Amino acid sequence: MKYSIFGESHGPAIGVVLEGVPAGLRLDMAAIQKEMDRRRPGKDALSTARKEGDVPEILSGVFEGKTTGTPLCALIRNTDAHSGDYAAIKELARPGHADYPARVRYEGCNDYRGGGHFSGRLTAPLVFAGAVAKQILAGKNIAVGAHISSIYGINDAVAEDMDSLLAVAEKDFPVLDDAAGQQMQDAILEAKNEQDSVGGSIECMVFGLPAGLGDPDFGRNAEGIFAQHLFAVPAVKAVGFGAGAAFSLMRGSEANDPLYVDDDGSVKAEQNNAGGINGGITNGMPLVFEVTMRPTPSIARTQFTVDMEKMENAQLELHGRHDPCVVHRAVPVIEAAAALATCELMGI
Amino acid sequence: MKYSIFGESHGPAIGVVLEGVPAGLRLDMAAIQKEMDRRRPGKDALSTARKEGDVPEILSGVFEGKTTGTPLCALIRNTDAHSGDYAAIKELARPGHADYPARVRYEGCNDYRGGGHFSGRLTAPLVFAGAVAKQILAGKNIAVGAHISSIYGINDAVAEDMDSLLAVAEKDFPVLDDAAGQQMQDAILEAKNEQDSVGGSIECMVFGLPAGLGDPDFGRNAEGIFAQHLFAVPAVKAVGFGAGAAFSLMRGSEANDPLYVDDDGSVKAEQNNAGGINGGITNGMPLVFEVTMRPTPSIARTQFTVDMEKMENAQLELHGRHDPCVVHRAVPVIEAAAALATCELMGI
Amino acid sequence: MKYSIFGESHGPAIGVVLEGVPAGLRLDMAAIQKEMDRRRPGKDALSTARKEGDVPEILSGVFEGKTTGTPLCALIRNTDAHSGDYAAIKELARPGHADYPARVRYEGCNDYRGGGHFSGRLTAPLVFAGAVAKQILAGKNIAVGAHISSIYGINDAVAEDMDSLLAVAEKDFPVLDDAAGQQMQDAILEAKNEQDSVGGSIECMVFGLPAGLGDPDFGRNAEGIFAQHLFAVPAVKAVGFGAGAAFSLMRGSEANDPLYVDDDGSVKAEQNNAGGINGGITNGMPLVFEVTMRPTPSIARTQFTVDMEKMENAQLELHGRHDPCVVHRAVPVIEAAAALATCELMGI
Amino acid sequence: MKYSIFGESHGPAIGVVLEGVPAGLRLDMAAIQKEMDRRRPGKDALSTARKEGDVPEILSGVFEGKTTGTPLCALIRNTDAHSGDYAAIKELARPGHADYPARVRYEGCNDYRGGGHFSGRLTAPLVFAGAVAKQILAGKNIAVGAHISSIYGINDAVAEDMDSLLAVAEKDFPVLDDAAGQQMQDAILEAKNEQDSVGGSIECMVFGLPAGLGDPDFGRNAEGIFAQHLFAVPAVKAVGFGAGAAFSLMRGSEANDPLYVDDDGSVKAEQNNAGGINGGITNGMPLVFEVTMRPTPSIARTQFTVDMEKMENAQLELHGRHDPCVVHRAVPVIEAAAALATCELMGI
Repeated sequence: MKYSIFGESHGPAIGVVLEGVPAGLRLDMAAIQKEMDRRRPGKDALSTARKEGDVPEILSGVFEGKTTGTPLCALIRNTDAHSGDYAAIKELARPGHADYPARVRYEGCNDYRGGGHFSGRLTAPLVFAGAVAKQILAGKNIAVGAHISSIYGINDAVAEDMDSLLAVAEKDFPVLDDAAGQQMQDAILEAKNEQDSVGGSIECMVFGLPAGLGDPDFGRNAEGIFAQHLFAVPAVKAVGFGAGAAFSLMRGSEANDPLYVDDDGSVKAEQNNAGGINGGITNGMPLVFEVTMRPTPSIARTQFTVDMEKMENAQLELHGRHDPCVVHRAVPVIEAAAALATCELMGI
Repeated sequence: MKYSIFGESHGPAIGVVLEGVPAGLRLDMAAIQKEMDRRRPGKDALSTARKEGDVPEILSGVFEGKTTGTPLCALIRNTDAHSGDYAAIKELARPGHADYPARVRYEGCNDYRGGGHFSGRLTAPLVFAGAVAKQILAGKNIAVGAHISSIYGINDAVAEDMDSLLAVAEKDFPVLDDAAGQQMQDAILEAKNEQDSVGGSIECMVFGLPAGLGDPDFGRNAEGIFAQHLFAVPAVKAVGFGAGAAFSLMRGSEANDPLYVDDDGSVKAEQNNAGGINGGITNGMPLVFEVTMRPTPSIARTQFTVDMEKMENAQLELHGRHDPCVVHRAVPVIEAAAALATCELMGI
Repeated sequence: MKYSIFGESHGPAIGVVLEGVPAGLRLDMAAIQKEMDRRRPGKDALSTARKEGDVPEILSGVFEGKTTGTPLCALIRNTDAHSGDYAAIKELARPGHADYPARVRYEGCNDYRGGGHFSGRLTAPLVFAGAVAKQILAGKNIAVGAHISSIYGINDAVAEDMDSLLAVAEKDFPVLDDAAGQQMQDAILEAKNEQDSVGGSIECMVFGLPAGLGDPDFGRNAEGIFAQHLFAVPAVKAVGFGAGAAFSLMRGSEANDPLYVDDDGSVKAEQNNAGGINGGITNGMPLVFEVTMRPTPSIARTQFTVDMEKMENAQLELHGRHDPCVVHRAVPVIEAAAALATCELMGI
Repeated sequence: MKYSIFGESHGPAIGVVLEGVPAGLRLDMAAIQKEMDRRRPGKDALSTARKEGDVPEILSGVFEGKTTGTPLCALIRNTDAHSGDYAAIKELARPGHADYPARVRYEGCNDYRGGGHFSGRLTAPLVFAGAVAKQILAGKNIAVGAHISSIYGINDAVAEDMDSLLAVAEKDFPVLDDAAGQQMQDAILEAKNEQDSVGGSIECMVFGLPAGLGDPDFGRNAEGIFAQHLFAVPAVKAVGFGAGAAFSLMRGSEANDPLYVDDDGSVKAEQNNAGGINGGITNGMPLVFEVTMRPTPSIARTQFTVDMEKMENAQLELHGRHDPCVVHRAVPVIEAAAALATCELMGI
C-alpha cells in the first residue's frame, strides 16, 4: 500500500491516493470520520480557529461500499482559508518554517499561503489513509494507539495496554492521566497568552503484531520503515524505539529484556526496552515508539528574520490563526503514520 | 547510489555491492583503509579481541584506479572466526539480540554463529561504502564528521565545526574532550570488569550541504532519508535532528532559529535547533543529528532466557569475545551511514 | 517524476497525481487540452459514441499559473457514463478483457461497469500527465511524436523526422500517408459493420535526447524503462526498439549501424536499427520504438465465454458503445507514456 | 527478491547478490550447475572459444546447505580472459555495441576490455539467480521453459507443453524440432564462415501460474514486470506477449480467446493469444512471450566507425573470440529472467 498526498493549505482541495488497498474491505465511514474529527481544527482554544468540516469525498477505489483493490482517491475541499493573512509577509521567511528552504528548493514558485503544501493541514489526508489502514489491520487483530507522553516537560503516565489507549482516543485531550492533561492544557494556554507555543512528545504502540516481521537490512528493517513514515509528519524531529534515547544511560544488564515462555507457549519478554524490535525484526511484544514534535513555529511574538526578496534582515509579526501546540491534534496523525508503517512492514 | 550488504560473521566473507557510483572517481585506497581501521576490532581492551585485517578486495567497478560507474563489489574475507563459541548456545536466545525474532523470521535457517548476518561485523562493508561516499562528497566540498556525544551518561563537548571533528577522527577514542573521553573509557572498562556493557550516543554533522535538498513528502524528506540509513545500523534505537527530543521541553520562541543575512549574502540562522532541516528540506546550515546506541547485548553475566528448541525457560552464560561498548567503534559507521544518506539526498 | 492514476470508467471522476514535477513550469493549458482532445472519444464513427469533455481540473501543484514543485493533482469528471449497459452482463467474462482475472485478483469487488479501472478511459489522465511531461521536455529541446504504423496489416510510411510527426499530430487520423490512412479507416469501418474490431501498431520517436542516458542494469536500462511505461497502457501487447522483431531475420553486418563523425563533430549512425539505444544507453540518435495494440476486445458478435457466478459456459452479446479500433486514439497516449519514460530516463 | 549483478568481462570476478530469498530452501547445486553449463561458452563451434568453468562460489546466505533468508552472494571468477585482444581497438567504437554511449555515460572510465560490464558474460550470474528462482518456483509447482523460436528466419515448432520444453533443456541445441535446429546451426556456421553473425528469437513459457497476479497499473502489471526483466538481458530488442506483434494483423473476433469451464471447474481459454495475461493480470493460462535478440554485434568483417579519441572516421577489424550467434546460449538466460520476473509478480 502506497500513498501520495497532494494539496495546499489554501488551494481548492487536499487529498490522497492510496494504491494497493486490499479488495473487499467494507469501509466504516463513521470510523473514518471519527479519526478525521480527532485531528480537525477549530474545536477549542487550544487549536487554530480555522474551521474545516474535513469530510472526505471518495472518488475512486470504492464500489458498493467496499474497496475495489484499485487506487482509492479521497478529496477534502478547503473551505475556510484566509489567504489575505499571508500576502503581507510573503517575502519574510518565518523562522522554524520551511519558507526559506522551500523558496530555494522550488525556485520561489511554491504556494506560500498558509504554508502551502507544508501546512499541517496536509495531515488530514494522512489521517484518512491511516484510518483505512487501521481498518485493514483490525481484520488481523492488530491495533494502534497513542497518547501525548509530554508537553513542555509535563509527563503523562506510561501506556500499558491497548484498552487504556482506546479510552484515550475518546477524550478531547488525549492523555492517560487527566490531571497531567490539565497541567498540559494550562501550559498551552499560558504559552498562547504569551504569544508563544510549546512542543511535546507522543508515545504510540502497535498491539498484536506477530514476531518475525522486518529484516536487518537497509530499507526493510522495522525501525527504518516506521521512522520514514514518522518523519514524513510535519514537526516530528526525533523518534526513539522502546527505551529510545534512554539506552545511552544504561548498562546491558538493564537494557536487555529477559525472555520467558508464557503460559500459552509463546515467547515473551519481562520488560520491553527493545520496543518490540530486535535486529530490525518484530519480536512479538508490542511495538512501542515515541516521537518528539517541535513547538509550532508560528508565534505572534516579533521575530528576527530575513526578507527573501530584498535579501536583508527584517522583523516579522505574524497575525492569522495558529495552533499554540500541535501535539494533541497530532495524536491521530501519529497513529495514522504508524498504521501505514505497520501495513508496509506486513507487506500489505 | 544503492548498496547491498551481504555476509555472515562466521561465513567465508562479507561485502557490499555499490550501484550508481559516479564514474571517474580516483579511489583513495589509503583513505578507505583508514576508515576501515577506525572501525576494526581487536585494537584494545575496549573492544572484542577478534582480530581482523579488514582489507577490502575490490572485484568490480574500478578500472585503472578509477570508478567505472558500473556496480562496485568489495569483499572482506573473515579470518578470525571462532565458531565453536556458539554451538553450545545455539538454541538459547540471547536477550537483546535478534536470535528469537530471526528464528521466527527465517524459520530457524539463519546462521546463528556470531550473530550471522546480524553481527556488528556487517558494519565493515558499510564503512567501505561510506568511505566511497565520503570521497564523492569531498569533491563537492561536503564533509561528514562525528564524535561520541555520551557514554553511560558521561557527555562529550558539543561539536562546533568540521575541523574539530576531523581532529576527532584521528583519535583512538573519538571525543572532542579527552578528559570526558577518559571517564567514558573508565566506565566501559568498569562495565567490562563487571561482565556488563554500556550504551551511548553519537553526534554527527554534515557540513557544506546546500539549501534546498529534500522534500516534505514521504520517502523524500531529509529526516526520513537519514533515519532510514541510520536505523539500518545495528544497535541504533533513537534518532533526533537538531535539538531532537529536547524540543519537547521548549517553547516556540526558543525553538525557532532566527535568520539573518550573512556577510557573504547567504541566509544563516543564529542557532541551529532545526539541525539544518526545515519541512524536510535542508536550509544551508550544517545538518546535525544524534543517534542513540543500545548497550552491547552480549554480556558475560548469567541471563534469563528461553531454549528455542525445547521451548522452556533457561539460563544463559555467554563466553566468547565481545565488545563491552560499541559506541566508539560505531563513530565511523554512523559517518558512513550519513555519507550514504547525503548522497541519496543529493540524488547521487 | 512519478504518477498515480486513479478512477473508474463509471465512477464520479478519474485523475492523476504527479509527484516530482519541476517547479516553475508555466503550464500551457491550451496545449494540454489539445492533447486531451486528440484522445477524446465521441468525435467520429471510428470511435465510441461516449461523449466526454475531458477538461482537467487542477487541484494542487499549480500556483499563479506555474508548477509549485509539490504534487500536482488533476481531476476529470465522468459525465456520460451509461452504467445500465453493464448490469446485465456483470457475471459474463468478456473475452479479451480483464473481467475474469480481475474477479480473481480483486475477489469480485472491482467495479465492473465499463471495465472500471481497466477502462481505456483511464488513459485520459495519462495523456494529461504526458502533456505536462512534454512541456518539461520541450524546455530541453526534446520532442516526442508518433503515428499509426499499421492497422490490420495496412502500413503507413516510415517516420523520418519530427516535423512530419508534428504535422501528424494535427490530423484527425494520425498517419503520415493519408492514402494509407484512408485504407485503414475503411478497414476499421468494415470491421465495425461486421460487428468486429481491428488491431494495429504505433511507431513513436523521441528526438533531441543526448547520448549517455540509461544503464545496462536491471531497472535502469533505457529499453526497460520505456517498456514498463508502455505496457502500462491498456491493449499494448508487444514493444520493439529500432528494428525490433526484424532483428531475428538479420545478420550482424546488416543489423550493426555504422558510425561516423558528423559535420558538427558529433557521432552519428548511418542507419538506426538500434533505435537510439545500445547496451541500455541512449546513443544520440532518435529513440525509436513500435508498440502493437490488440484489437478492441469489445465486439458486438456473439462470443463464447463463462458465467463467473454460476461457473458454467455461456454466450455473450455485448451492447453499449465501443471503439472498433483504439489505435488512432492511442497515438497521443503512447506519446504520453514515452514522454513520461523520457523524464524517468533523464532523472526528472 | 532483488538482484544486483556486478563484474566485468576481464575483471577478477563477476557475481550477484540476491536479496529476499526465502529462508529454508535446500539449494540443489547440481541443478544450478546444470543451468550454468547450458549457458557456458566454449562448448562447440557455434560459440566463442573462451573457456570458463563458471562454477559459482557462494559467499553468504547459505548455511548448512539451506538458504538463510539473508542476502546470498555468489561469485564466479574469470579465468580465461584475453585482454590483449582489446587494447588495439580501445578507441574504436564497435558498431552495434555500447562502446560509444558507454564512453559518454561513464566519461571514458568504463572497462573496455571484452565489453566490460556490458559483456554477455554478465548473464552467467543472471543464470545463477534464475536457477535459485526456479527452485523456489518449483516448490509452488511453477515451471519455466524456453526454446529457440527462430534464427535468421528459420522457425522452430511452437511449444505446447512443459514436458517438451524440459526435453529441450537437455539438448545441446535447444529446439523442439531438431531438423529445424540443424538448419539453424547451418545458418550460424555459414554466417561465421562469412565473418558474420545472425539474430533470432526465443519463446518462453511459465506454467502453473495462478490467475490473479499483477495489476493494471504502472509498475505492477505482469507485462511490464516481465519486460523490465527481459530488456535487462543484453541483445534483447523486442518483447511480445501471446500473439504479440501479430495482433496488429488481427480482428477482435480472432484475437479474443473464448473462455470455457474446464472439467476440473477452472476457467480456461480455447486459445492463448493473450499469452496468459489480460489487463496486466495473469488469467491462469500459461504465460507466453517471445523475445527477439539482435545478431551478435562482434563480427570479423571490416566495419566503418569512429575513433572516439581522435573523433574521426575509422575502419575497424575485430579479432578475438566471438559468438556467431547468442540465441542458443541465451535460452537459459531468458528462462532465468522469466523466473525472476515470476518471483516479482508473485511477491516473492
